[in-house]
Amino acid sequence: MTPNVAAAKAALSHLEIEESDAAIKSKSRDFFWYSPVLKDRLDHVVADFVVSPKSEAEVIEILKVCYQHDCPVTTRGAGTGNYGQAMPLAGGCVMHLKHMSAVKEVHPGRVIVEPGCLLKDLDAECIAQSGQEIRMFSSTWATATIGGFIAGGSGGVGSCTWGALRDLGNIIRLRVVTMEEEPRVLEFRGEELARVSHAYGTNGIITEIEMPLAPAYDWVHMFVTCEDFPDAVRFAEDLANEDGILIKLVSVYEAPVAFDYFQRVKPHVDTDANLIGLMVAPHSMDGFETFLARRPEAKLIYRSDASTWERQPGPVFEYGWNHTTLRALKVDPSITYLQVRYADPDQLKLIEQIREEFSPEVLQHLEVMRDGGKVIFAGLSLVKFTTEERLDEIIARHEAVGAMVFNPHRYTLEEGGRQTVDDTQLAFKREADPKGLLNPGKMIAWDDSDWGYERMYAYPGLKAAE
Amino acid sequence: MTPNVAAAKAALSHLEIEESDAAIKSKSRDFFWYSPVLKDRLDHVVADFVVSPKSEAEVIEILKVCYQHDCPVTTRGAGTGNYGQAMPLAGGCVMHLKHMSAVKEVHPGRVIVEPGCLLKDLDAECIAQSGQEIRMFSSTWATATIGGFIAGGSGGVGSCTWGALRDLGNIIRLRVVTMEEEPRVLEFRGEELARVSHAYGTNGIITEIEMPLAPAYDWVHMFVTCEDFPDAVRFAEDLANEDGILIKLVSVYEAPVAFDYFQRVKPHVDTDANLIGLMVAPHSMDGFETFLARRPEAKLIYRSDASTWERQPGPVFEYGWNHTTLRALKVDPSITYLQVRYADPDQLKLIEQIREEFSPEVLQHLEVMRDGGKVIFAGLSLVKFTTEERLDEIIARHEAVGAMVFNPHRYTLEEGGRQTVDDTQLAFKREADPKGLLNPGKMIAWDDSDWGYERMYAYPGLKAAE
Repeated sequence: MTPNVAAAKAALSHLEIEESDAAIKSKSRDFFWYSPVLKDRLDHVVADFVVSPKSEAEVIEILKVCYQHDCPVTTRGAGTGNYGQAMPLAGGCVMHLKHMSAVKEVHPGRVIVEPGCLLKDLDAECIAQSGQEIRMFSSTWATATIGGFIAGGSGGVGSCTWGALRDLGNIIRLRVVTMEEEPRVLEFRGEELARVSHAYGTNGIITEIEMPLAPAYDWVHMFVTCEDFPDAVRFAEDLANEDGILIKLVSVYEAPVAFDYFQRVKPHVDTDANLIGLMVAPHSMDGFETFLARRPEAKLIYRSDASTWERQPGPVFEYGWNHTTLRALKVDPSITYLQVRYADPDQLKLIEQIREEFSPEVLQHLEVMRDGGKVIFAGLSLVKFTTEERLDEIIARHEAVGAMVFNPHRYTLEEGGRQTVDDTQLAFKREADPKGLLNPGKMIAWDDSDWGYERMYAYPGLKAAE
Repeated sequence: MTPNVAAAKAALSHLEIEESDAAIKSKSRDFFWYSPVLKDRLDHVVADFVVSPKSEAEVIEILKVCYQHDCPVTTRGAGTGNYGQAMPLAGGCVMHLKHMSAVKEVHPGRVIVEPGCLLKDLDAECIAQSGQEIRMFSSTWATATIGGFIAGGSGGVGSCTWGALRDLGNIIRLRVVTMEEEPRVLEFRGEELARVSHAYGTNGIITEIEMPLAPAYDWVHMFVTCEDFPDAVRFAEDLANEDGILIKLVSVYEAPVAFDYFQRVKPHVDTDANLIGLMVAPHSMDGFETFLARRPEAKLIYRSDASTWERQPGPVFEYGWNHTTLRALKVDPSITYLQVRYADPDQLKLIEQIREEFSPEVLQHLEVMRDGGKVIFAGLSLVKFTTEERLDEIIARHEAVGAMVFNPHRYTLEEGGRQTVDDTQLAFKREADPKGLLNPGKMIAWDDSDWGYERMYAYPGLKAAE
């Protein structure tokens, strides 16, 4: 099967096609460079052409034409993923959904939206129409799209209350186009959602999304410090377990993350300050202040509704989730990160064990999540990168003591996930993408069903660097 | 100290005073008769007069006048409590707050309301003004007041998401009038709320309430059956642990409660049916249906948005919490109940242990609550009453195996609670009610600081039956 990319591009020339090499290159990249490993492997990756459909009909046309010409199609939103989700490993076509950004309907508790809508714009429209907002979003809220979040993300700001995107109820419906000789348009609900959510666009293209909404509040953004790191973790866990205090974000940063990497916070902390980032509903602030007063070890240093800071820090969620890594990287380019899941009944002990072994080479950055009804911590630990071998060693030690790692230094679904084949996604790819043209190289199970995960998977179809 | 009730009544004669003996008797009672023990002790209790203030100024006047004349004052809302909360054990004045029912302000996330407002009316006004509703309410929503709920209740419908009334954030502010020579008006927030919430009006009179609100939805009311009781309990627990499915009520009823006591449900179940009552947000119904389909042992027999029943059952919450007992009592007058707290890490095992020992003398009725961030079960077990000795024996066995009982066959705060002195409430009573005139006989610590709880407390000031 030899792709005829030129023929595909020519057949699509009446659509909006990006011509500039610089633009094609920039639209072939995402935030993969958070990982020195992915930077090494994928830095040269570039599409042959970029097309930006304006409607589902155009999406269907692109998929049909590229199917005819065996041309790979990698779909992207804003390209803010960190796992190379949106990078066209085999070249070919990048389909950019930026024009499909309409908020179609807003109802009590739900919204219907096109995938290219920015999270920020989606919230603005939902708030304007109904005083509601989306339950959860990535820290890249200002620049990321809802479709990219669903296809490439797992949770984020709001997950401390609502759990992960994959949890029942956090996506209502997805409309999906297949890449077949005659593309089909399918509507997925319930169990079917798992086929295409968090599948990097490897087995269908999402053209419409129905998501649940929550009430929008003027969240109070706050920073709290603790001298002692375990105190900060306990504060976070206990606050998240307060059923009557409505929260949207609880992040914990080990010292000296705040001092070293958070420029606007630095004047207000010293190097020993462990920081907690918070978003609390305004009508829960009385409850929060009572909670805070019971903990003399915790000091409130910033609240957005009564700030005394000369330079405002901006939204506190832009310090959390993967923005933490971004801020650290800007100061120290040798920083990278891990995604860890601490769900041990005694998760604080597990965190302390890892911290004792690795700090300051690995600095703890924790995000509170709900998982199966319980408060757990997602770790987006900052890692001072030296070598790939050392990074692998650190990951192996995490796993050995019982902390699961979702490795962000891999570009496949399986390696970035639980290192097992997702049968649901694979079965649907067989049906919806029989030629294997959608985002090639991202699903190991498609290319090598016997892969054993002993080493980093290297996609054989990866275009060589020139 | 001899009360001069006649003088107090005369001095208040310009206010709305109830003159009919029948009305005075009925306004001296609550739902204490759920308990055969309380019925035996309190059936004769009656006030000397009933006054219904129209404003905080009139409340102040009543408290000041009654203070001058040493006349006891027992405050009531609708009198739907089950612990004799609103019954004037020492006679004197019953102050009925029915006219103080204004919804003063509705804001995003909160409402300011007078105590005599019915929960139903409060919700209607909040929905009309803002699409919001109160976070939690008792099953007596249609007839109970918000003030009575706060002064005499602990949680209810909505507690499966928001926890108990006492949890931080579930009450924002209370305005309270003291009973002193010159009554003071105080505003309580934070830690201070614990002074007067769930204090039965023994240490101050609430004249204004600020409560958090949640979005109002057209909740889907449902009934689900399981042949196996533990399956039903697991269903309830697992559903409540689904972070993305928004719920307002999850109740579980052991067979044959549904068949024997729920007349409108009876045609649709057999005697072996264990029943689950549910309220789920409409935009969570897709997630709920997915959850349900994973459990073939559970059968959906009713949903309010697509009912096929000839006779509609009404709101499903009117089968839960203490309405269960009410429905059972109507069929079998020998039924009473217990309030149990199952918060064991293996709560299902504890419930089964108790069920094995006592069913069908004690039939399980469970309500899902959040407690410290975890899903626990509150039991409002139905008990086939024989003797007080047997009832005490059943309670003792519950406590012996680790299930805490809040005894609803006692009329004091301590015995209906954790059998310990609440120092916060006691200290505030000393300050706010120096003569001990507010709802006398309800706080043991005030009358007998050395009480040991070996037997049922008998208030020495209880007016004798005539």
